[in-house]
Amino acid sequence: MTTLLNRRVLLAAHPNGRPVASDFRIDSQPLPAPAQGQLLLEILYLSLDPYMRTRIDAGATYAESVPLGGVMLGATVARVKQSHHPDWREGEIVLSYSGWQQYALSDGSGLRRIDPALAPVSTALGVLGMTGFTAWVGLEEIGRPRPGETVVVAAASGAVGSVVGQIARIKGARVVGIAGGAEKCAYVKDELGFDAVVDHRAPDVAERLRAACPDGIDVYFENVGGAVLEAVKPLLNQFARIPVCGLISQYNDAVMDASISLSDTLFKRLTVRGFIQSYYLEQHQDAFLAQGAAWIREGVLRWREDVVEGLENAPEAFIGMLEGKNFGKLVVRLAGD
Amino acid sequence: MTTLLNRRVLLAAHPNGRPVASDFRIDSQPLPAPAQGQLLLEILYLSLDPYMRTRIDAGATYAESVPLGGVMLGATVARVKQSHHPDWREGEIVLSYSGWQQYALSDGSGLRRIDPALAPVSTALGVLGMTGFTAWVGLEEIGRPRPGETVVVAAASGAVGSVVGQIARIKGARVVGIAGGAEKCAYVKDELGFDAVVDHRAPDVAERLRAACPDGIDVYFENVGGAVLEAVKPLLNQFARIPVCGLISQYNDAVMDASISLSDTLFKRLTVRGFIQSYYLEQHQDAFLAQGAAWIREGVLRWREDVVEGLENAPEAFIGMLEGKNFGKLVVRLAGD
Repeated sequence: MTTLLNRRVLLAAHPNGRPVASDFRIDSQPLPAPAQGQLLLEILYLSLDPYMRTRIDAGATYAESVPLGGVMLGATVARVKQSHHPDWREGEIVLSYSGWQQYALSDGSGLRRIDPALAPVSTALGVLGMTGFTAWVGLEEIGRPRPGETVVVAAASGAVGSVVGQIARIKGARVVGIAGGAEKCAYVKDELGFDAVVDHRAPDVAERLRAACPDGIDVYFENVGGAVLEAVKPLLNQFARIPVCGLISQYNDAVMDASISLSDTLFKRLTVRGFIQSYYLEQHQDAFLAQGAAWIREGVLRWREDVVEGLENAPEAFIGMLEGKNFGKLVVRLAGD
Repeated sequence: MTTLLNRRVLLAAHPNGRPVASDFRIDSQPLPAPAQGQLLLEILYLSLDPYMRTRIDAGATYAESVPLGGVMLGATVARVKQSHHPDWREGEIVLSYSGWQQYALSDGSGLRRIDPALAPVSTALGVLGMTGFTAWVGLEEIGRPRPGETVVVAAASGAVGSVVGQIARIKGARVVGIAGGAEKCAYVKDELGFDAVVDHRAPDVAERLRAACPDGIDVYFENVGGAVLEAVKPLLNQFARIPVCGLISQYNDAVMDASISLSDTLFKRLTVRGFIQSYYLEQHQDAFLAQGAAWIREGVLRWREDVVEGLENAPEAFIGMLEGKNFGKLVVRLAGD
């Protein structure tokens, strides 16, 4: 096998607020053949997710933050193209964390096999992957909607919000989604089956949300922050739960100022809890995958992908996602399944 | 038995910020003899607690808020002076919610018998009562300190804070208290056995707290708000828990603005939860009373009372408490045990 040329997207500059195209750079590097104990992965799909914005700031303190000149991070679905590892066979499909590039070498650690019989393999990045699991964990561990309670989720047509709403409905809750624009709102109500939807581009979001939640709000799944949160706050019921998995509306801001007052927290007995899905993987992933696949077979859990073609279009798609331009789980297709 | 004259403290005006003496009024009313099925209670001790401030505002929406001209609310320890009820005998000591008055009629509902053999009966308002139970519930249900973790509590010499710190130490945590003035600080460290104490009147509270918490803060038991909270925030560790049982520093303010940002909540995976102890009474009270009494017998749970003599001094003591003038659980003694 000849040496491969591996195209990669690198972080060229730390964004100043909203990322721009010149914050990213594409290069090609020769990739050596896999050594004994290694696999060569060919990336099929690359996941684009809001959390990535928090890993590319100059001050980012995560272990997983991206240094200048580093390959952009992220989960991918890949095919084992070549294996010199006893546990992996050529042709297997795996979930990996190889980042924004065409190929990667791996020693097998951190890989998870994907069963193509469950659903299209790209769903391992979405409804049966990180975003679906985020919805599951936030509801199972924090939100815990009971039948008849009202659950509100923003970015309701998005990868996390759409699953939050559908699971909450399966659990018997009344589900109100918030989405941007008529097309997304129609999808949320008609295709995902939410009980109500509010367009956050409407001038009177607070009024509309109040009308959509006549019994107040028992669970607010927070993945946005900002104006939606302000509309939600006065409607929160006693003992409401607020799982916080993201604040996409704030990631481009120098100061993230979304907050819930401690007096509301006290007098309404709120539970406000931030969480990261990876913390719960070991304990919950098997149950989630089994249940999620069953719901998909039964047709009660739907999803929508926004597929961008080609690695070179990843930066622009990522920038647009932070402004809500995607419609469904955003993935980049690098090679055919 | 001749008709009794019952002295009472009434709410004369809704306070505008800090309560003043003229917000209260004392009257005397004849009290009829107990009818069949009723008890006459003679109040021995009246509890004064910060939460009462939240029930006397003009806009207070609690079911238990005090209307103008109403008797100030609150828990009391009382002696059954006369019983026309089959379940209660003269001379029994009970916990009641009769408010700021000398006598009360009761049909027995909501009363709880107090065992004078456990501890002085006034402790049913404090270390073995609402404030001790608040500490217990906040740690059992939300704080859950593990051995070696750092627990911080403000108002550490107070009725709730002192119990929080002692229970957390029993559970193996490192406990740091915050208190106002040398005398209270010495009590917290030397008598209650906290690992460290910080005087919030010192000019450099944030620096001192940082020095006292070299491994950060895993549990912050919030009963104060304000400047202490600001010093705590940067020290909160990943997965820190913040039970919120009170915000005494803010109760006199028109706007209670203490808050924790959702970005901290998200990126530090915080749990911020408001709670009221009464919600947990049925489930937890027996275990708490048994364990609390055992700890008292073993000498590992201490308490301090600030006893004010005479009903007429209740308003001034209450006003002072909101400024931290009390030292220990504040009670008003109305009659000898």
